[in-house]
Amino acid sequence: MWSISHISDDRTQLIRTTIDNKTKPLGALGALETLALQIAQIQDSATPALTKPVFWVFAGDHGITDEGVSAYPKEVTSQMVMNFVNGGAAINVFCRQHDIQLYVVDAGISSTIEYSDKLLNCSLGKGTKNFLLQNAMTSEQVQFAFSHAKELIAGAERTGTNIVGFGEMGIGNTTSAAALMALVTGIQADLCVGRGTGVDDAGVSLKAAVVSKLLARVNGRLDPVSALAAAGGFEIAMMTGAMLAAAESKMVVLVDGFIASVAALLAYKIAPAARDYFVFCHASDERGHQRLLAEMNARPLLDLGMRLGEGTGAALAYPLCQSAVAFLNEMASFGDAGVSQ
Amino acid sequence: MWSISHISDDRTQLIRTTIDNKTKPLGALGALETLALQIAQIQDSATPALTKPVFWVFAGDHGITDEGVSAYPKEVTSQMVMNFVNGGAAINVFCRQHDIQLYVVDAGISSTIEYSDKLLNCSLGKGTKNFLLQNAMTSEQVQFAFSHAKELIAGAERTGTNIVGFGEMGIGNTTSAAALMALVTGIQADLCVGRGTGVDDAGVSLKAAVVSKLLARVNGRLDPVSALAAAGGFEIAMMTGAMLAAAESKMVVLVDGFIASVAALLAYKIAPAARDYFVFCHASDERGHQRLLAEMNARPLLDLGMRLGEGTGAALAYPLCQSAVAFLNEMASFGDAGVSQ
Repeated sequence: MWSISHISDDRTQLIRTTIDNKTKPLGALGALETLALQIAQIQDSATPALTKPVFWVFAGDHGITDEGVSAYPKEVTSQMVMNFVNGGAAINVFCRQHDIQLYVVDAGISSTIEYSDKLLNCSLGKGTKNFLLQNAMTSEQVQFAFSHAKELIAGAERTGTNIVGFGEMGIGNTTSAAALMALVTGIQADLCVGRGTGVDDAGVSLKAAVVSKLLARVNGRLDPVSALAAAGGFEIAMMTGAMLAAAESKMVVLVDGFIASVAALLAYKIAPAARDYFVFCHASDERGHQRLLAEMNARPLLDLGMRLGEGTGAALAYPLCQSAVAFLNEMASFGDAGVSQ
Repeated sequence: MWSISHISDDRTQLIRTTIDNKTKPLGALGALETLALQIAQIQDSATPALTKPVFWVFAGDHGITDEGVSAYPKEVTSQMVMNFVNGGAAINVFCRQHDIQLYVVDAGISSTIEYSDKLLNCSLGKGTKNFLLQNAMTSEQVQFAFSHAKELIAGAERTGTNIVGFGEMGIGNTTSAAALMALVTGIQADLCVGRGTGVDDAGVSLKAAVVSKLLARVNGRLDPVSALAAAGGFEIAMMTGAMLAAAESKMVVLVDGFIASVAALLAYKIAPAARDYFVFCHASDERGHQRLLAEMNARPLLDLGMRLGEGTGAALAYPLCQSAVAFLNEMASFGDAGVSQ
């Protein structure tokens, strides 16, 4: 299904030399230099440009909320979708700040809502099943999620987008994400779960117990697609597909926090070359995130103690990507500026 | 000379409640929430606004370069000043990106240059003296630096600026900054020095030896103003004064990396209330920086392994300040959005 190539190494030496000749001590821009190189490699150009950034927030409901895993009631998913549509959520604020186009996607929420050009209908069902009792979704639903996601990316590509970010909203989805992490990595349940939207110690223990029960139900580790069917959220499945599709289209993929990183891990396990297109944006305060990042050898750009989701960490890191591209294109070289090297 | 008041605590409870009522889990925006509160307290307003950001890059030459402490020749200071004027340095790129007004200030470079509305003459001399042989500058020069800085801030305040940042350029100035750090904190020399623009291990040892010799010459610790006279750079003295003046004018002060943090430490030791106005922007890769930040109980916003100076870390952190203000002003509350809490 996916045809993803590794980023080009053809111009790596040229780009490195360009960076090293800029009027600054060698390596003095730190992670911005690595980022500039990655973006230049993705675009196979020593003069990359970021155009028409788009973010999608995928929303979905989770049957696993029946187990009491969240600090918030399930209704909050739909209420927050309306908040996104009305422009009042954190991701709206940060996207407006950085001129990022934002779409909200119903990947499968419980309630019935009115769709518009800002609120897209990709619903895969009225919420997933309780994954302790049966698979959260069918494998057909996983494939539908991937197809829908591919269409979204194709649409953005047609209008000139080459950098994308993804957020999620789904009460219960840190439990689903922790389950997916445990299923595909084999890392033990209690290292995958965290406080989510703010559960207490007992809540964290409950989440670990839920993930352990799931592991018992499916008899251990699974491949990424089977894992999504077993315990995924519709929004996580769509995000996984969107990351793969964006990598296929050679876009820069901004990876947000814990849940987005789980989607990134699934995408990476489906097509390892997809990892080349990922910019890890922030270290979430969610407990399992550091372990998850280590699985992908990723060091995120920001570490602000955030744990909000919605793509907020990715939106905050976007100006750093612009800075990386800008210094590469605009800084004078030692030769140009007549500065002794 | 300085009349700096602590930031207001009058609206702290109101601001905290406003933040906690935004449509997000409690504390989920992490460091951005702390930043929003600080900016709101600085402005004594629950609806703060950042207006007309201005950065100054202070440039000065250092007599201590006679001891061979830098990887670059002294001429680079003036060459880089011309690069700033021509818009080709990293700080130019990042200020353009974020609509930050940028001025270059001759605080005391060796060469003769043509001044303009972008390159200001505040020269205190043609470089400092070699501080191993005599004081780097006179105490009159320190006071002149403070007066000049106060005028710059007053000018910006008249045009409506309420957020400022400071950069520096001065071959040899990490050695001067390390000396100042050692002089006012008592931290041993080898924990204050680092690679600067890129000296090797022998270079770092040489810098430590230079700082130790200075400590012997002046018989140990000094007050901040005496320390500036003993081993300061003209650009560091001006930056210290500018931070104090900006705090006096209740501006948000963006503190860059190692050298700017030394200036911040001096300002804090001169007038402890100034600390309230400081936003620590990035953790420099320069070795002494972590120790220095600990002296001020500071945790910077960014940690990108940068060590360029010029104010670049502060410019990159500016959009995070905008984000903090934007979420505080623009996000919906649970009540407004009809989201269950």
